[in-house]
Amino acid sequence: MKAEFVNPFIEATTNVLGTMAMVQPKVGKPFVKGAQASRGDLTGVIGMTGEKLTGTMALVFTEACAMAIASNMLGETYTSLVQDVIDCVGELTNMISGGARGKLGEQGYSFQMALPSMITGASHSVHHPANAPVLVIPFSIPEGDFFLEACFREN
Amino acid sequence: MKAEFVNPFIEATTNVLGTMAMVQPKVGKPFVKGAQASRGDLTGVIGMTGEKLTGTMALVFTEACAMAIASNMLGETYTSLVQDVIDCVGELTNMISGGARGKLGEQGYSFQMALPSMITGASHSVHHPANAPVLVIPFSIPEGDFFLEACFREN
Repeated sequence: MKAEFVNPFIEATTNVLGTMAMVQPKVGKPFVKGAQASRGDLTGVIGMTGEKLTGTMALVFTEACAMAIASNMLGETYTSLVQDVIDCVGELTNMISGGARGKLGEQGYSFQMALPSMITGASHSVHHPANAPVLVIPFSIPEGDFFLEACFREN
Repeated sequence: MKAEFVNPFIEATTNVLGTMAMVQPKVGKPFVKGAQASRGDLTGVIGMTGEKLTGTMALVFTEACAMAIASNMLGETYTSLVQDVIDCVGELTNMISGGARGKLGEQGYSFQMALPSMITGASHSVHHPANAPVLVIPFSIPEGDFFLEACFREN
């Protein structure tokens, strides 16, 4: 996985979380995912459809991590994955994919706008289509972990 | 929700399941989803990004239903949500969204190709962005239920 694909997602995530939630996540070592899936309790998934590449991006949060970030974003204290927390993750998924899209666009990879879907349910996993590499970037904040997964296939 | 939006998804689902899995699902009454989410154990989500409309489609399966359909598609007996079953749901999500895309295209709504993501995890729910109507079409086969959710926003 080339750095030119990885860095836009790292930068977009740290920028958006810093601006929206005043959170500076610790960035783990990115890796290409094997059969094993990241587990989370609240996930935002968004399509990234472009002229050269088509794929998806997922933001996979543990419950504690999602609640902490939403609490910071909205100035409320959340103790479960209520609609506001789900909407926050949708907004973050939108903004982070948008930020990455902007940076990838500067490298000649343009993508369409898209809408996210969010998934709730204890300890679910995201799977991507076969024959396309999946980039996983692990992030952590004191309250818990989250993962960014991005999967692209050449058109 | 206009019939011209609903019928392409019903037709694509019955056509694809009939052809690929020799299954004729019973079609329930479509409805516009409120706050409540459909619960499933294996979901395929795919973006539908177009010039006039942007949205997502999800196929939400109970475990028993997904295993029965995959068993029919691949001629194997499945007793858990192994990779083959997940891949089947990805393929069905692709083909059904493609079929609906074709029919919506005839009505002047064109959409880009996209890749699906699949979610596993007992009893998860799909949520769509606020301010966009979510169409839910319930289907059932003897082994269990599945739901098609489609959510669109005008560009």
